[in-house]
Amino acid sequence: MKQSGIDSQKIIRRKPDGELEYLPDDLTIEDPLEIRIGRRALATTMRTPGHDEELAAGFLVSEAIVRKRQEIAKIASGRNTVIINLAAGVKLKLNSARRFGTISSSCGICGKESIDAIRQNLPAIRSSNIRIDIDTLLSLPAVLRKQQGDFARTGGIHAAGIFDSIGELKIVREDIGRHNAVDKAIGRAFLDGLLPLNRHLLLVSGRASFEIMQKALAAGIPIVAAVSAPSTLAVSFARESNQTLIGFLRPPSFNVYSHIERVILEGK
Amino acid sequence: MKQSGIDSQKIIRRKPDGELEYLPDDLTIEDPLEIRIGRRALATTMRTPGHDEELAAGFLVSEAIVRKRQEIAKIASGRNTVIINLAAGVKLKLNSARRFGTISSSCGICGKESIDAIRQNLPAIRSSNIRIDIDTLLSLPAVLRKQQGDFARTGGIHAAGIFDSIGELKIVREDIGRHNAVDKAIGRAFLDGLLPLNRHLLLVSGRASFEIMQKALAAGIPIVAAVSAPSTLAVSFARESNQTLIGFLRPPSFNVYSHIERVILEGK
Repeated sequence: MKQSGIDSQKIIRRKPDGELEYLPDDLTIEDPLEIRIGRRALATTMRTPGHDEELAAGFLVSEAIVRKRQEIAKIASGRNTVIINLAAGVKLKLNSARRFGTISSSCGICGKESIDAIRQNLPAIRSSNIRIDIDTLLSLPAVLRKQQGDFARTGGIHAAGIFDSIGELKIVREDIGRHNAVDKAIGRAFLDGLLPLNRHLLLVSGRASFEIMQKALAAGIPIVAAVSAPSTLAVSFARESNQTLIGFLRPPSFNVYSHIERVILEGK
Repeated sequence: MKQSGIDSQKIIRRKPDGELEYLPDDLTIEDPLEIRIGRRALATTMRTPGHDEELAAGFLVSEAIVRKRQEIAKIASGRNTVIINLAAGVKLKLNSARRFGTISSSCGICGKESIDAIRQNLPAIRSSNIRIDIDTLLSLPAVLRKQQGDFARTGGIHAAGIFDSIGELKIVREDIGRHNAVDKAIGRAFLDGLLPLNRHLLLVSGRASFEIMQKALAAGIPIVAAVSAPSTLAVSFARESNQTLIGFLRPPSFNVYSHIERVILEGK
């Protein structure tokens, strides 16, 4: 992975022996990205630069504004802006547009106008045939970590990986914002025409909030695994959406919070 | 601390020895809170229930809508709503209102309409006399952790602590959203008439993003310490705002990213 999300700065460090030293330190870049539909400014996110077009595309998928690759006619990016032109005939529903302050539900404060608008009423996952065996599941965190070049250097970045059912890593993206990392990964799959990802698993390096589950659902992903804890709302959402939710995936242990039928429990 | 932010659910756990067990697990509650000014819905945040009025008050401070305790006439909360009545004569500037999709800058995607609106042009910290010695600084993470009852049980919650210059913990709050934890802590101080906190330090259990620095600045806090990494924008913001920013505060080490003059380097 490119290391474009990194900036090196001079800092003062207290070493374990108590001595102070003046040295360069790698920091994760945080910078605003404005997403526009044509001339209309839609949303701004604080993201780590890189894969901006994927981030914007993934955002539109997560927000249920587009579902198919051909609904986007053109996507172009400047330094801190991505401009998307929707295909002729694709309307930006007022509904979606209104939700826009709304979306980053797990993030802090969002400018939306009513609690109901947070849920997007995406259909639940249909019965999907994907199942994953325990050995494969336990192998995933190490695979993700190996690809996560930036984290090792900065300790301040989240990763999202999309795996197939035999544990092969298909897409990995990093960002200072956990939601952005997921949007970038989903956006890449969308731009490649791979949605719905109904035979895939999403692994996130941190916690699983409601919003992560909803983004996965928008992409059709039936299994979500997180290295850290899920929230209550993530669990109830997963149960309703027919998504398998695995938390604290820290080999040799993990927790299953919903739909364990997609985990192959018997030995090979 | 009360444990009201916790919900216990039945899950399936794979133990280190490979055996599966069905057991109750404590999860951090994530639920939406709507903040209203009178009848006007202002913002919704996904938060851990508890200290909702503080969260709402801290949000208004962070957003520079109010600066003094007496600008709030009344604050009342229901299950998932807080209603604030501003004092007579205090106007909700359209400017602020417009920014509302905007605020959770580090969070993911926010509905604001231009990048400039993210920065609030708060004045920098004036020369403040607070200084902290290294031993005190190194003692803070353990104090915060000791108070952080929920984290030990769920592994999925952030803490924010406000300390004085001799390392005494004055306020500690927890939330699933790091920004909410800071808003709750600042909101408590605001409701007690303690702002500006110009002789205090804010310690956060996770990373320091731009938004955390801006919230601290709104409360007048000159020193911010984080257990994990800061972002580039947090560092540049701290330098401009005359805030001391300490990262990776993991005894016996830490990094100083800005304004080291507030750290007493010489021995006692």
